[in-house]
Formats: sequence, structure tokens, C-alpha cells
Amino acid sequence: MRMAELSRESGVPVATIKYYLREGLLPPGERTSPNQARYDAAHVRRLKLIRALLDIGGLSIAAVRDVIAGLGQETSTHDVLGIAQHGLPLPTVEVSEEARAWAMERLEALADKRDWVIAPGTPIVEALVGVLCTYRDLGHPELAERLDDYAEAADLVAGTDLDTVAALGQREAIVEAAVIGTVLGDALHAALRRLAHAKASRDRFGATAVKLQ
Amino acid sequence: MRMAELSRESGVPVATIKYYLREGLLPPGERTSPNQARYDAAHVRRLKLIRALLDIGGLSIAAVRDVIAGLGQETSTHDVLGIAQHGLPLPTVEVSEEARAWAMERLEALADKRDWVIAPGTPIVEALVGVLCTYRDLGHPELAERLDDYAEAADLVAGTDLDTVAALGQREAIVEAAVIGTVLGDALHAALRRLAHAKASRDRFGATAVKLQ
Repeated sequence: MRMAELSRESGVPVATIKYYLREGLLPPGERTSPNQARYDAAHVRRLKLIRALLDIGGLSIAAVRDVIAGLGQETSTHDVLGIAQHGLPLPTVEVSEEARAWAMERLEALADKRDWVIAPGTPIVEALVGVLCTYRDLGHPELAERLDDYAEAADLVAGTDLDTVAALGQREAIVEAAVIGTVLGDALHAALRRLAHAKASRDRFGATAVKLQ
Repeated sequence: MRMAELSRESGVPVATIKYYLREGLLPPGERTSPNQARYDAAHVRRLKLIRALLDIGGLSIAAVRDVIAGLGQETSTHDVLGIAQHGLPLPTVEVSEEARAWAMERLEALADKRDWVIAPGTPIVEALVGVLCTYRDLGHPELAERLDDYAEAADLVAGTDLDTVAALGQREAIVEAAVIGTVLGDALHAALRRLAHAKASRDRFGATAVKLQ
């Protein structure tokens, strides 16, 4: 198909498709003349993936480029799954050495118990350190005391996710599903947690419950 | 304390504090002369909360204003906890009527089983519909098939969270902890899920596992 049809099929404006081509997010079409190219169903699919990562995943253009580059790499499946963890918008905050040591002690105990790998300095561990230290700094250290229950929930989700993607069998499908599930999953799980909170709050503090002061 | 000391104590620049005062995020200090005011520990605490909601929670100034306005409301604890769900950056995407019906059927079955309330049109339900439809549109409907496991994990986290905040006893402390835990919890749980994914991936696709094609 030509550019105009690719735009209709994907719902992405022509100018935006050209921008993604320039930025290396979308592979070039097959050149049919000096200023025309042919695109196929793989381009439509890729465009939908780009939009999902940008619009729902909240990723930057640079992060989408990294993730997409990873899809085509010939490394082990485990290594490629790790790519879905890069470029994700995890926040970091500055913390004191004392606060960092306090947070790392909790994370290392958790990792030992769960057989997780905690690598200091990685964006994921920095994000955890930042959140835990902020809980404490805001006067709510109790929010950091039930990490093991949270980790139990994370292991439950991760086990389900890996079962789901492993059943796809083919490496490319597995990696694509893992990337999509990881990036869009943040919004999914955030929303599910809010529905669960509403129910738990209703049960404890609803109209029929004992009123707090 | 005066403005300069409030800035030192909180680590927030004077110009930024003045901006938060103008935007109504920070309550005015006690006026001591036509162009001086006195601030106290509650202002320091509030400034730290504002920074956490903006920097880690990723909320907009308008969303922070809504959340903070909710902290002072004299409604039921359950209603105030609901405020933590407003103004949160949940994505929405446009979906067809057919796709929406497909997603809502799954969500309603889930809600029945979990005793959750699914209110069509609310940002949370729209976010869920958007993610589920996007999974399907990207050719990965299998990612939407294990919602019940995800809901189990969400209920586990929510039960833990409500136990934790209910133990605080006082309404103001409960609501503040709930807001902080909800907003910062998105980053915490996203990071924990990635550590759990890394472990699950290592178990299934690591060096010693059978190599996929």
C-alpha cells in the first residue's frame, strides 16, 4: 500500500508517519520510485504499537525507539524481555545517604526472600528507593512496612504474565507481547488497584461501618 | 518561620513557594506585617507533599490542587479516599462500540466476582477499556484473558493498604496516607512488578532453560 492508504489503515496522519520514519521508529517502505514507497501490514501493526507506547504507555519518542530496536535484536529471550524495562518513565528523587541505606536494607531483605536481583543504581531500584524514602520523609514510614505483601502481588502478576507470553511459543510474538503487557500493564494495574481500593474502603469506611472521628 | 527559612527547611525555592501560594496549593501564612507572613511546620509538611505528588506522582498542578482540597473536606472517610482517585493520570483512547462492548463484558464479569463497582464513563473504567481494547487491536487478546489473576493481586494490595492506613486511627492521617500511598504507589508497584518479571523471565528463559526458536 502507499503512504495515503497506510495513514487510513492505521489512523495515523501522513505528517506523523513521516516523522516516525525520520525518527527511525518505523522502518522505511520498499522504494518503488525516487519519491514513492510501498508499505505493508507489518507497517500498520508497527504504527499501532508506536501509538500505544506513546499514548497509553506514556513513553517518550526516544524510549519508544529503544523498545522497538530491542524487538529486532538477536539476543536471548530473557535479555530482550529486559528491554521492556528500559526507557520506562520511573521517577527518581534525591535522597540522603542515611535514607538510602534505610531503604536498601528493606529492599535487600525483600530480594533475598523472593530470589529477586536488586542492582543498586538501576532506574528500577532508584525508583523504589525514592518512593520508600519519600514515604518516610512525608511522615508515613508505615507505608513502607508491608513490602512483602506487595511483592507477593507482583510475583502473582509476573507469573501469570510469563505463563501467558510463553504460551505464544515464537520468540518474536513473546517479546512483542511482553513489551506491550509491561508498558500498557502499568495503566491496567493502576486502574485495577483503584477499583480494589474502592471496594476495600467501602468495606471498612462505608455508610454502615463505624464512623471514625 | 519566615519565607526564607521555609524555603531552606523544605528545599523548595522561594519563587516556587510563591507560585504554590498563588495557585492555592499552599495555605497562606499568618500575616505579621503588610508584606511579611509567618509559616510553620504544617507548611513544610505540605510543601513536601506537593513536591512528592508532582515529582513522583506525575500529577499536574491542577490535580494536586484537587487532591489537597480533598484533604480538608468534611465528608466521610470513604468519600475522601475516593479523591485520591481523581486527577490521576490515567490514559484514555478512542475505541469502537464493538470493542467497548467486548471489554465491558470482561470487566463486568470481573466486578461481579470481586464485588467491585464498575461505573462506565469514569476515568478508571475508561482506562481499563482502553488498555484491553488496545491489547486486542495490537493482536494480543491473550493479554486480556487473565484479568482475574490481576484482580486477585489488586485485592491483595488494597487489603494491605487499607489495613495499614486504618491503623493510623485519625481521619486526617488516614486520608493523607491514602493519597500518598495511592499516588506514589503507582511507581512503587510498577517497579516491584519489573523485579518480579525479571525473576519470572530468568526462571523460564534464562541460560539454563530450554532455548526457544
